[in-house]
Amino acid sequence: MAVSIKPLADRVIIAPAAAEEKTKSGIIIPDTAKEKPQRGEVVAVGEGKVADNGTLVKPSVSVGDQVLYGKYAGTEITVDGQDYLIMRESDIFAIL
Amino acid sequence: MAVSIKPLADRVIIAPAAAEEKTKSGIIIPDTAKEKPQRGEVVAVGEGKVADNGTLVKPSVSVGDQVLYGKYAGTEITVDGQDYLIMRESDIFAIL
Amino acid sequence: MAVSIKPLADRVIIAPAAAEEKTKSGIIIPDTAKEKPQRGEVVAVGEGKVADNGTLVKPSVSVGDQVLYGKYAGTEITVDGQDYLIMRESDIFAIL
Amino acid sequence: MAVSIKPLADRVIIAPAAAEEKTKSGIIIPDTAKEKPQRGEVVAVGEGKVADNGTLVKPSVSVGDQVLYGKYAGTEITVDGQDYLIMRESDIFAIL
Amino acid sequence: MAVSIKPLADRVIIAPAAAEEKTKSGIIIPDTAKEKPQRGEVVAVGEGKVADNGTLVKPSVSVGDQVLYGKYAGTEITVDGQDYLIMRESDIFAIL
Amino acid sequence: MAVSIKPLADRVIIAPAAAEEKTKSGIIIPDTAKEKPQRGEVVAVGEGKVADNGTLVKPSVSVGDQVLYGKYAGTEITVDGQDYLIMRESDIFAIL
Amino acid sequence: MAVSIKPLADRVIIAPAAAEEKTKSGIIIPDTAKEKPQRGEVVAVGEGKVADNGTLVKPSVSVGDQVLYGKYAGTEITVDGQDYLIMRESDIFAIL
Repeated sequence: MAVSIKPLADRVIIAPAAAEEKTKSGIIIPDTAKEKPQRGEVVAVGEGKVADNGTLVKPSVSVGDQVLYGKYAGTEITVDGQDYLIMRESDIFAIL
Repeated sequence: MAVSIKPLADRVIIAPAAAEEKTKSGIIIPDTAKEKPQRGEVVAVGEGKVADNGTLVKPSVSVGDQVLYGKYAGTEITVDGQDYLIMRESDIFAIL
Repeated sequence: MAVSIKPLADRVIIAPAAAEEKTKSGIIIPDTAKEKPQRGEVVAVGEGKVADNGTLVKPSVSVGDQVLYGKYAGTEITVDGQDYLIMRESDIFAIL
Repeated sequence: MAVSIKPLADRVIIAPAAAEEKTKSGIIIPDTAKEKPQRGEVVAVGEGKVADNGTLVKPSVSVGDQVLYGKYAGTEITVDGQDYLIMRESDIFAIL
Repeated sequence: MAVSIKPLADRVIIAPAAAEEKTKSGIIIPDTAKEKPQRGEVVAVGEGKVADNGTLVKPSVSVGDQVLYGKYAGTEITVDGQDYLIMRESDIFAIL
Repeated sequence: MAVSIKPLADRVIIAPAAAEEKTKSGIIIPDTAKEKPQRGEVVAVGEGKVADNGTLVKPSVSVGDQVLYGKYAGTEITVDGQDYLIMRESDIFAIL
Repeated sequence: MAVSIKPLADRVIIAPAAAEEKTKSGIIIPDTAKEKPQRGEVVAVGEGKVADNGTLVKPSVSVGDQVLYGKYAGTEITVDGQDYLIMRESDIFAIL
């Protein structure tokens, strides 16, 4: 899964994991009660950030990585009917 | 499409994409209800930003690029009766 | 048009363009309803800003340039009965 | 005890120490009254932070260290049913 | 006009110009209605600011310069019964 | 007096001086009215702070120093039943 | 007049000048109406501040200097029954 968008600088595009549709005990969760997921798959990565001394710091995540990010990280964008999150690499906590 | 304005430093002038005039099902959307578009075409680019060590960091977008930007990014300006947005390159999320 | 004031550092003095006195259809606009113009002519330019590493970054606008600036940019000053705006060069968006 | 998550940059994953279940005099503390512990064990460490001049500053804590951190430090994450805290190394006060 | 005070770093001491005592048409303005002047004469200048790389950036104003400054710039001090303003050089807009 | 905790970076652990139990005239001060002391003894010192250029800036206080610090400086921690304050070295005003 | 306290970094200890006890016309001013003085004598000086590039910037005031400082500058400390102000050197405006 990859998208044709090219994020600028140290930005990353993430396809959020689908929210759980059922509780563990099998009860179906209505849309409004679904918890916003905090993990997703990286689908596009920018070229990196220009450091203060002019060198380019390459991102440390790659397309395909499963990542963990903050609850309010990023901005929602819609490309070809799909919802993605675009955020700075520093908003990503960890690679799973 | 290009304009004769020369943005300073790392500023970029963007012609916002026209807002949708109809919903998918064909209902005409009145002007006030139209969602402010978040994509547009770059029509002018500044020379770049001077880094802390004095070197010029060239912008990574070019005239003609279709770009994605934040909902509240930039300042509206009117040149020859046309509405544009002028923003810093760092307000641009991605190139489509 | 130039003034004998020498702005310090990266400051620029601008003579704002006169506000429109009439609407397009010819109605005269009273003084209080006139929109504050956002374009003007550069009448004096400072020597530039000293960068962190001690080098002088020369301004990129010159006396006589027609410029575009933000609605709330600068401070109003009065010199010899004339009203000017004094602002930092970074408050100028673009050269027309 | 270690987890398979790879924190980015200068982030650290910590398994908080279990909250006291009893007071010193033996009274069982209900869940809601338990004080949030401020010590825990480091279970994963990022590769370090890129300094302004581009060099990598290695973290000074290691997996297995018992650490002390601020009451509101970090973000809670759940991995394989276990609760962890993910925080920046600078949020850690001391190694016990 | 010069004072024996030695301002530290990039500070400057200014003797504000006397506020107008009469309107142009000759009406005497009471003390409370007098507009706080925004121009004055430099009476003492510090040695300059130490830049991030340790070099001294010399001030660009000199004792005797007539300067323009912001309405709320500086702190009022009283030396030998005289009122002065002490401000950073960056609070000065321009030399007249 | 020293503790076995190793503070990270430029952090310092301080054993606050005991609050006065009596007023000068001999009246016993109840616990709640005791003024929080602002002096104490350094019991542990971190290795120092990594400067922007990557060099380590050693702390200028040592274990055993009697120091003066701000009223609201630091975070209270309890180690082996003893109360300490952990703060950054920059929160310390002076060595007595 | 000097104290045995060693201020850290760019901190300075100042003995504030005594507040005026009488008005010019000889009326005695009660304690609560006395204006907090803004001048004093430097009684102790730190070793200086470590600049970003690791070099030590020596303070430019010395013990014995009469200085002028802001109304709300510094923190009050009491050493051997005497009241002093401890502040950063940058809070000092000028040497008298």
